[in-house]
Amino acid sequence: MNRNENNDPDSLPTGFRYAGVSCGIKDSGNPDLSLITSDWPIVAAGVYTQNQVVAAPVVLCRLRTPSTSIRAVVTNSGNANACTGQQGEHDATEMCSRVAEHLGCEPTDVLVMSTGVIGVPLPMDRVRVGIDEAFSCRSTGQAGFEAAAQAILTTDQAQKTAFRTLECDRPIHIAAMAKGAGMIAPNMATLLAVVCTDACLAAKDAQRIIEHAASISFNRASVDGHTSTNDTLLLLASGEGDPLAGDDLARVGQAVNEVSIQLAKELVADGEGAKHVMTIHISGAGDDAAAETIARTVAASPLVKTAITGGDPNWGRIVSAAGYAAARIDPGRTSLEICGKRIYDNGTPLSFDAADLSAIMKSEKSVEIHLCVGDGRGKTTFWSSDLTPEYVRFNSEYTT
Amino acid sequence: MNRNENNDPDSLPTGFRYAGVSCGIKDSGNPDLSLITSDWPIVAAGVYTQNQVVAAPVVLCRLRTPSTSIRAVVTNSGNANACTGQQGEHDATEMCSRVAEHLGCEPTDVLVMSTGVIGVPLPMDRVRVGIDEAFSCRSTGQAGFEAAAQAILTTDQAQKTAFRTLECDRPIHIAAMAKGAGMIAPNMATLLAVVCTDACLAAKDAQRIIEHAASISFNRASVDGHTSTNDTLLLLASGEGDPLAGDDLARVGQAVNEVSIQLAKELVADGEGAKHVMTIHISGAGDDAAAETIARTVAASPLVKTAITGGDPNWGRIVSAAGYAAARIDPGRTSLEICGKRIYDNGTPLSFDAADLSAIMKSEKSVEIHLCVGDGRGKTTFWSSDLTPEYVRFNSEYTT
Repeated sequence: MNRNENNDPDSLPTGFRYAGVSCGIKDSGNPDLSLITSDWPIVAAGVYTQNQVVAAPVVLCRLRTPSTSIRAVVTNSGNANACTGQQGEHDATEMCSRVAEHLGCEPTDVLVMSTGVIGVPLPMDRVRVGIDEAFSCRSTGQAGFEAAAQAILTTDQAQKTAFRTLECDRPIHIAAMAKGAGMIAPNMATLLAVVCTDACLAAKDAQRIIEHAASISFNRASVDGHTSTNDTLLLLASGEGDPLAGDDLARVGQAVNEVSIQLAKELVADGEGAKHVMTIHISGAGDDAAAETIARTVAASPLVKTAITGGDPNWGRIVSAAGYAAARIDPGRTSLEICGKRIYDNGTPLSFDAADLSAIMKSEKSVEIHLCVGDGRGKTTFWSSDLTPEYVRFNSEYTT
Repeated sequence: MNRNENNDPDSLPTGFRYAGVSCGIKDSGNPDLSLITSDWPIVAAGVYTQNQVVAAPVVLCRLRTPSTSIRAVVTNSGNANACTGQQGEHDATEMCSRVAEHLGCEPTDVLVMSTGVIGVPLPMDRVRVGIDEAFSCRSTGQAGFEAAAQAILTTDQAQKTAFRTLECDRPIHIAAMAKGAGMIAPNMATLLAVVCTDACLAAKDAQRIIEHAASISFNRASVDGHTSTNDTLLLLASGEGDPLAGDDLARVGQAVNEVSIQLAKELVADGEGAKHVMTIHISGAGDDAAAETIARTVAASPLVKTAITGGDPNWGRIVSAAGYAAARIDPGRTSLEICGKRIYDNGTPLSFDAADLSAIMKSEKSVEIHLCVGDGRGKTTFWSSDLTPEYVRFNSEYTT
């Protein structure tokens, strides 16, 4: 069982050092360069955006994972290095080379991530200074981890970290960080997340674990339905010796699932301008994939999102959104509950106290929606933020 | 050629009478019951929403078109009669029966449309009074047509009508009306539009014409990506004698296309809270269907919409939205122009005066976006509104 179910950050995985610095990529002066290094070659696995337009760092990382010889992940925020042509590929390669020089390793053993505005060349003079400075202040402790987690943020209001400790033959620690507040509809992973562990994992197991974790966490979360060019989720495993197997391996996989779901939920709660989270439970679909299609369609509807914003139990918007999803529903067997109140039963509206339900919706940070769409076995849970005037103002008045 | 290219409403098709009245379905007291009758049995064709959750009136209309014996279309606004169970079907049937009693025809020769809030039973006592009152004030002239067009509106700011006159053997007149301001992403037709003509059309030709017109007009327009439960587009043709064929039939088809596109564009311009229209031209796709998929994805992105709202030439949002569309693009051959200014060329950003382009975008009611995604032959044009704080406020503060 988890010694650390309460998400205690005190015990970090062994073998890692962390740093986060400000090097001037962001005009605000906020931290914008993050570095994670390992003290020996480690296992790394990744999942990446399915957008056809991929940022230069994603191109490099895809080629380099899964791997058993990774030494570092360098990340800049404030600039996505996406749609930047050949210059962008050159810059991403140089970021890895500069890190490799400090570590005395191959440039191909360094991973790189970027997040921020699309289509603007990286200010490489600042990035170079930032990398050098990060090496001068690496630490193994919580302060370093927090600094690294802070420096990957962009429009996020809050830092997103998650921790677990497992008692196996020896303690295994997991520490994870994520960023993401807009352009969030991950279709492989979210816009930048890293899970560090000192578990000893075979590369193929690491890849399988992180793919599964992505599919039930970040891939079930959406802020605005816009899949980014930079989505990257990495699992770094520093453990040495014989790779885990059996129950212990399963427990590590479960813990990675847990921290991924925790971060995905935090990411949605911190969606740009978000006031509420919708937690959409679909049941009765043809299969789980159909359930996810329906959930994603409901989550993306601006009419559903604004109803949640207003605390309006305007359930017709939810049922009609399910109706145009690209997956079959059975309208005569469709039923709906909002915040535990059943208001639509097998295609027929039930009478309910709208003012009372509205008050409950307004008071809940997470509005729970249970939509049954038939008698199939397909089900899922999906997290999405609401849509507020603040989201629109933020994204119309600033270039993000 | 069109005598009436300037959209002159003076000459209405013969054989129709129109009325629009207020019967109290809307709390505002605005007109909410619309009636179109024909003086003899006429041809009617329709296309309807592809939402799996369909309103009761759509269920009836689908069964009744195409037809050669239609006598009336009765429409209420302020209540969608959708998700209303068996009571809803009963009410829609009764609306037709009451109209049929006035005309002395079969109830199945009456079509019915509804638009408004979902999930609330129709106030049938008021609807009955409204139908009777509409029969007492039918007229063949422009005032009646305008009243009928006014009474189908809901959150629309402006009435949407379009007219054409064709000089064939004898003059052929076309008069069309539409409504739609929110829950607009038609996937068969838009939320309520009627095209009246005194052309003599075979039922199969009428059906073919209206299906094609829908595919290149309303089906290429979106306000909020939410396909309604009630979308209905009807073509009513009152002409007697031998059905048109050859060039004259083609010209009627072309004129129906024109009025449909005109109404679709007006509908987007009048989108809830809309300040700008995006006109999205896609070229270079694999085929026209792929181009439409890409256009629809770009049009639906809240990040693209808010960039247009802010007059922000933040083109990375457009390219990245195309990248997650469910149709292939060639990132290295992707190029973009906004308002005639080329800013991204074959995968590489071009330098441009962002302040200058922003000023142009802010000054244009319609922001023209040309996105080439490869060297294929597929192309399309798609219309969408921007996303403003007013849209969010409107849809979060009111039950629509």
